[in-house]
Amino acid sequence: MKTIEFSGKTGICKILLGRSFSELGDFCAVDRAVLVVDENVFRHHEKKLAGYPVIIVEPGEKNKCLATVDRIYERFLDLNVDRSSMVIGVGGGITCDITGFAASTFMRGIPFAFAPTTLLALVDASVGGKNGVNYHGYKNLVGTFNQPGLVLTDFSFLGTLPHEELKNGFAEVVKHALIGNGPLFDHLEEEWRAVTSLDYGKIEEVVSHSLAVKIGIVSLDETEKGERRKLNFGHTVGHAIEKATGYSHGEAVSVGMVAAAKLSELKGTLGTDDVNRIERLLRGFHLPTRLPEDKEAIIEALSRDKKREGDDIHFVLLEGIGRATIERITIAELREVLRDLC
Amino acid sequence: MKTIEFSGKTGICKILLGRSFSELGDFCAVDRAVLVVDENVFRHHEKKLAGYPVIIVEPGEKNKCLATVDRIYERFLDLNVDRSSMVIGVGGGITCDITGFAASTFMRGIPFAFAPTTLLALVDASVGGKNGVNYHGYKNLVGTFNQPGLVLTDFSFLGTLPHEELKNGFAEVVKHALIGNGPLFDHLEEEWRAVTSLDYGKIEEVVSHSLAVKIGIVSLDETEKGERRKLNFGHTVGHAIEKATGYSHGEAVSVGMVAAAKLSELKGTLGTDDVNRIERLLRGFHLPTRLPEDKEAIIEALSRDKKREGDDIHFVLLEGIGRATIERITIAELREVLRDLC
Repeated sequence: MKTIEFSGKTGICKILLGRSFSELGDFCAVDRAVLVVDENVFRHHEKKLAGYPVIIVEPGEKNKCLATVDRIYERFLDLNVDRSSMVIGVGGGITCDITGFAASTFMRGIPFAFAPTTLLALVDASVGGKNGVNYHGYKNLVGTFNQPGLVLTDFSFLGTLPHEELKNGFAEVVKHALIGNGPLFDHLEEEWRAVTSLDYGKIEEVVSHSLAVKIGIVSLDETEKGERRKLNFGHTVGHAIEKATGYSHGEAVSVGMVAAAKLSELKGTLGTDDVNRIERLLRGFHLPTRLPEDKEAIIEALSRDKKREGDDIHFVLLEGIGRATIERITIAELREVLRDLC
Repeated sequence: MKTIEFSGKTGICKILLGRSFSELGDFCAVDRAVLVVDENVFRHHEKKLAGYPVIIVEPGEKNKCLATVDRIYERFLDLNVDRSSMVIGVGGGITCDITGFAASTFMRGIPFAFAPTTLLALVDASVGGKNGVNYHGYKNLVGTFNQPGLVLTDFSFLGTLPHEELKNGFAEVVKHALIGNGPLFDHLEEEWRAVTSLDYGKIEEVVSHSLAVKIGIVSLDETEKGERRKLNFGHTVGHAIEKATGYSHGEAVSVGMVAAAKLSELKGTLGTDDVNRIERLLRGFHLPTRLPEDKEAIIEALSRDKKREGDDIHFVLLEGIGRATIERITIAELREVLRDLC
């Protein structure tokens, strides 16, 4: 049971690792708590969440929209939610993002917290203060930067997750190791079996180091002006793969990280041995490391990346395992590399 | 031509007084500017606003809603608005509030500025960082705290305002004097004729002192936890009058200020002479100082004030002209006083 405190522009965020959801009352005024819960999570964990007023949100990216936020505002009114309340998002990244946005804009901001129920949300969406919803097909186009006051991680939620969903989290943990913590990478090489079999002690250890990387980067650049771009490692190609194929986020990012590693190798900043180590670890987590067949569709999706600036894109490369660097490369160069990559 | 700089949690806000809208290019990258303009303002000042992409918003409180924000997001997409853009709200308080909210939530916050076109927006809505829209009949229920980067005040916009609209601004200027600047009150007693006849030199002087009061208070309490409540002087009773009668905001606040002054007199913190001075100055601005006939409707509206906490309400009283204090009083006590007030 570890506690990490992170002081952002918008306030202090306290992250409690390896707690039980039933301890919530030790950290906030539960008589004013309202839960916003993913429907699937509610079905699996109804008992654990009993006793609180609950707002159910339907799962899935298509429900991450303003209409869902509107329904949450309505329920806030029904439940007399105000600035003395504590809204707690219980679910994966989508639930956290929606809850954070609704709470950050209701009455110009009311207190909120997260109890992430997926490994991905635990190491990613629940920490860093980004929230929001999709708009007209653009991911997270509407949102704010605002830290939750509290993140309570109860690993027992992970027990009901399908392995496919866990893989999304493993990919992000590997990413954090690669961009900011070499020893964590070594550790994952030794412990990936225990981690994949959900040994909660190992999970806590890995999650706490993984979060430390994210928090370190976010602290330097809360509103994404430079340093924070490092968190995008593997995601430029990854997002294109996700759009163009049926790959899950974790699978797409895994391949994206291999592509970025190979580009780093080409640029001479990463050794071939390290590229091989990266591929091997990802395979340990049952994550793919090869580009799908239809490369042209991926290259096409890359050309439409909304983060590009003119013909350039900020691309995150590795300077060894544990150290990332941001370079502007041209879309043309990236295309070339992808065509050559197996 | 004065410039006031105000450094808030969410960034620096530069207020340029008595400029021409045509000077906009001196202060921001106009090639990336997009205007969000009140329909009436656009009709009266189309020439002045020529050359910019324009998003028109319909005037009136009923259009201050999420549907309008949704339409603005859509137009942002059409116009390729992004973090390198500068969105400028041109209009009264409603336009500023909507624009600020849309810009604060699009792409998790893009740069925005205001060119207030009413005296009320100039001394109130455009400064302080509150934005938002109404929701299900609740005023400003959805919004954020976020400072605009720039406020450019071009007094020539005031020339097309009906006198009734100007009165809303005069009431707010008197409020600022009463809660935080005694000498400004003395000055208004001498200069109200020049101010009401829109002598731009006098307006600039009065506006700059009025803004200084607001900025001083907001700096101490950006997110409305204590000190900022002083800005609510005259507004508790004022909002009730506005709800229960056909009074404009300025008229209602004017009567509300007299009620609060008389309550201060009853509590022994304000002399009778000062109460008389306040009434006299408000009458100079053609603002009412007597409660409307139907007191019971106002008392009923007061009982439903959303800012009350249980049976109490934070009420702003005066300790002399230029100094405000916040006291908790019971709704019952307030009712009593209103019944006795003429």
